[in-house]
Amino acid sequence: MMPAQPGFRLARGVARMLIGMGHAPLCEFVPSGGLRVDVISVAPSGEIWIVECKSCRADFTGDRKWQGYLDWCDRFFWATDCDFPVELLPEGSGLIVADAYGAELSRMAPAAKLAAARRARVLRDIARTAACRLVRSTDPQAFPDMI
Amino acid sequence: MMPAQPGFRLARGVARMLIGMGHAPLCEFVPSGGLRVDVISVAPSGEIWIVECKSCRADFTGDRKWQGYLDWCDRFFWATDCDFPVELLPEGSGLIVADAYGAELSRMAPAAKLAAARRARVLRDIARTAACRLVRSTDPQAFPDMI
Repeated sequence: MMPAQPGFRLARGVARMLIGMGHAPLCEFVPSGGLRVDVISVAPSGEIWIVECKSCRADFTGDRKWQGYLDWCDRFFWATDCDFPVELLPEGSGLIVADAYGAELSRMAPAAKLAAARRARVLRDIARTAACRLVRSTDPQAFPDMI
Repeated sequence: MMPAQPGFRLARGVARMLIGMGHAPLCEFVPSGGLRVDVISVAPSGEIWIVECKSCRADFTGDRKWQGYLDWCDRFFWATDCDFPVELLPEGSGLIVADAYGAELSRMAPAAKLAAARRARVLRDIARTAACRLVRSTDPQAFPDMI
């Protein structure tokens, strides 16, 4: 089913590209209170990428939190559609050009390796978030407070 | 929907109990080639539990691999229904009594802490497995080889 919001459409294309690269992407992840990233992804090696999807100029200029995401990944990327004014984007981050059906890695992000303890925390939280969402999708009654 | 196989019914009850404890359970996880555990679960603290579900005596006596699971968790549990001859089970492992609707922790397993590198690997693999299963459930076309 096609996602309704432009940002979610980009995220779907990004996730497809990442799956094709052997990554495991997870959408709408909260690394820390007050932060919510569009896509976080775990490479086979354990490297952690964050991808922020920006559907238009206002979506980008209204984002005052993105620098906070850098502390939670090894590489940070923007994902935009092909009409986005990419000159707005800060240097030193990666770029993915996406639509709802797929995406292309346009510029690789530099690596800034997480410390081991931080990486372990992020992997634990990705594992817990994804596993709980799976249970919720297959057995919603497992969450009695949700009924 | 009620799982067809007795082992899967126990696993559903176990997963419900674990969710109630704040854990994040994942069913049918492969920690290493040739091993497949019924339930692996990540506590809020990051502690990793493995639960093997045994629906009958033959199911237990036919399992020659369970000692291999000990290397992939901090605590190991058996889950059985209330009619299982629990005197068959080896000492030094935990016990959960389960049915399809829920479960009760009957005997806590002793902790044998994983080394940091092993824990990081298991958390990475749980994160990747659960995230990929979520994508598969929401966007099966992300896996072109599956069509």
